[in-house]
Amino acid sequence: MKPMGPVPAGFASIDGELAIGGQKTGDLAAKGTPLFVYDRAMLDARVADLRAAMPERLAVHYAMKANPFPPLLAHMAGLVDGFDIASGGELRLALEAGMAAGRISFAGPGKDDGELEAAIAAGVTLNTESAAEIRRALAIGERLGVAPRLAIRVNPVFDIKGSGMKMGGGAKPFGVDAELVPPLAREIAHSGAQWRGFHIYAGSQALDADAVIATQAATLALAGDLAEQAGVDVPHCNLGGGFGIPYFPGDTPLDLAQVGAALDDAFRALPDRLAETQFAIELGRYLVGEAGVYLTRVIDVKRSHGEIFAVTDGGLHHQLAASGNFGTVVRRNYPVAVANRFGEAAMESEQTIVGRLCTPLDLLANKVALPEIRAGDLVAIFCAGAYGASASPSAFLGHGPARELLV
Amino acid sequence: MKPMGPVPAGFASIDGELAIGGQKTGDLAAKGTPLFVYDRAMLDARVADLRAAMPERLAVHYAMKANPFPPLLAHMAGLVDGFDIASGGELRLALEAGMAAGRISFAGPGKDDGELEAAIAAGVTLNTESAAEIRRALAIGERLGVAPRLAIRVNPVFDIKGSGMKMGGGAKPFGVDAELVPPLAREIAHSGAQWRGFHIYAGSQALDADAVIATQAATLALAGDLAEQAGVDVPHCNLGGGFGIPYFPGDTPLDLAQVGAALDDAFRALPDRLAETQFAIELGRYLVGEAGVYLTRVIDVKRSHGEIFAVTDGGLHHQLAASGNFGTVVRRNYPVAVANRFGEAAMESEQTIVGRLCTPLDLLANKVALPEIRAGDLVAIFCAGAYGASASPSAFLGHGPARELLV
Repeated sequence: MKPMGPVPAGFASIDGELAIGGQKTGDLAAKGTPLFVYDRAMLDARVADLRAAMPERLAVHYAMKANPFPPLLAHMAGLVDGFDIASGGELRLALEAGMAAGRISFAGPGKDDGELEAAIAAGVTLNTESAAEIRRALAIGERLGVAPRLAIRVNPVFDIKGSGMKMGGGAKPFGVDAELVPPLAREIAHSGAQWRGFHIYAGSQALDADAVIATQAATLALAGDLAEQAGVDVPHCNLGGGFGIPYFPGDTPLDLAQVGAALDDAFRALPDRLAETQFAIELGRYLVGEAGVYLTRVIDVKRSHGEIFAVTDGGLHHQLAASGNFGTVVRRNYPVAVANRFGEAAMESEQTIVGRLCTPLDLLANKVALPEIRAGDLVAIFCAGAYGASASPSAFLGHGPARELLV
Repeated sequence: MKPMGPVPAGFASIDGELAIGGQKTGDLAAKGTPLFVYDRAMLDARVADLRAAMPERLAVHYAMKANPFPPLLAHMAGLVDGFDIASGGELRLALEAGMAAGRISFAGPGKDDGELEAAIAAGVTLNTESAAEIRRALAIGERLGVAPRLAIRVNPVFDIKGSGMKMGGGAKPFGVDAELVPPLAREIAHSGAQWRGFHIYAGSQALDADAVIATQAATLALAGDLAEQAGVDVPHCNLGGGFGIPYFPGDTPLDLAQVGAALDDAFRALPDRLAETQFAIELGRYLVGEAGVYLTRVIDVKRSHGEIFAVTDGGLHHQLAASGNFGTVVRRNYPVAVANRFGEAAMESEQTIVGRLCTPLDLLANKVALPEIRAGDLVAIFCAGAYGASASPSAFLGHGPARELLV
């Protein structure tokens, strides 16, 4: 038997069935599986909890790469203060979702001229990633007769301790090395462009409040130092993200109150150069990850050499991360349940849940303790709201993409 | 400096530019990057070499999951003896490509009723994966008034030694454990269905001829034993695939002549039950992998803490496997070149090539020896013909899919 991650708080059952947004999963799945279901009320609650814990001064941005499903984006546009985007495609979706261009910022190490032009024309802030990109943006702004809104993405020398994904610390393709930032900040501020400040992103998926607090403190110190060295004020500073969610056995939620209190203290002790700065955090996974569930129907249950395999109509073509093939070295089990018998006791034998793809990589839950699975059962894989549908190879083996539903 | 895999044989340059199918890559890329280019002549040569080395009696099937690009499929339909498919979606593409239904076989542990029905109605052979699936297929055949063409996929107790991906050996969701096969084979043979024989797939991506030969011998022995135990003849036997291609430093090509000679010997010593059997091998990657190149344009070249990063307009959303995030534990470098200066000497400093995605996972070539890369250069990533475009999360971060081109 292998453990699995904790089922996120807030999921109830109706008549023994897992419910999402007050609806039975069987009803949600009636029009076809596999599907992703995202719970609007859980999105609302997550943003509300975050705002309650964080200083009022901190703006909350949604990093839409986590989940760009248009109905979810439209809902998030009404909840948060801005969107962070990573491509021209995301720019279009963000605007279509109703987010004002002035509240969108665009990071990414490989923005092409077409993307820069679309963003500058729309009035989106560019988190610029190199001297060459700054000069391309200035030239495009001149050509368009628009003052581009330019911030600098800084490559910090620190990263979040225990972070799931390191984005800072040492040589990186992201952002500008801190020591090169001051002259570039001055260049932008004196160029006629709108100088917007800094974007400092040190890592993601951290569950340790102390690590997040230390990183935020280092980020504020770095922003203050760079502003001082450059001799510029900082209209806006994106402190990055990094708030993680529990996926795996032993993971515990981030202590939001602790992080918020420390940030509140830090905001009371800012240097002069940051006195008027508008701060933001940029969260993707933290806002939407736990609000999503991937539902897949069991097609066959078979035994092989004494082991039980439940074969579903889903797989890694929809939920690559849950199969352990995206950004993880050692595969561990996401939280999983038999949705139509939610809360029922586990059988004695371990069971393995696989996707329908003809590859041993397509493993959704390895040797877990669950109620006895039968053909026709509905399997729920939790923590599917972020980096699921859009971060999986949906064309692989020709089964097509999953349905998505916001309830 | 880290090594990279060997550039596949057969790529030439024209005026110092990498050429594919006799065309300069700069011309091929003129209408936009990133793109995958597949070389028709290399596909032809690969199938011809394979046929020359293998016994005439062996049919060659293409496992279209490796690359389902419609123009490539249409070309392959004229070259090989059959297609192996893994979904209802692949069935439609295979038929559209002009492959006769009678030469298509369908494997996959999670075939749903709709897929079974479409395959049975079309006259496709089902490589059945469980007793339950056999009974579903028989019931659907009865309802349709069609005798389904049924083979049994066997889960062998052996796998290919040194295989890149184990598909047999021990408990598996694929196929029927060997000891359960004989009664099921009898059940099919006496059911009124068309009994088609066995599908025995023990692994993939093997480069060691001795390992492949040992596996083929074991596969033939198993097929003979199962036929004898079941008391049935075997009209058709799919021996699986497993022929690998060199991707990484130190990889050398499979010795095809050695494999062919051993199989020829084995075919001369078949048991009576296999005397009339039509044998096939099922190859995907081996037929198409080396004929494809992924071309991506350099947007920016930057230095960070002394290291050089070339940021391209491509990334893991098109070539997930090359980034090391699909089925590999330790990331190694695929063969890579600067296409517009193909064959030019490497600069002294190592360079790292990344995709445009805002994640440290998006690494295309780590610290490699290449000519000095400049913005505007075209980077070629080889071995992109299989498990590239269709096996990558093309929606991730909203840049959209790559173009594909058969030349």
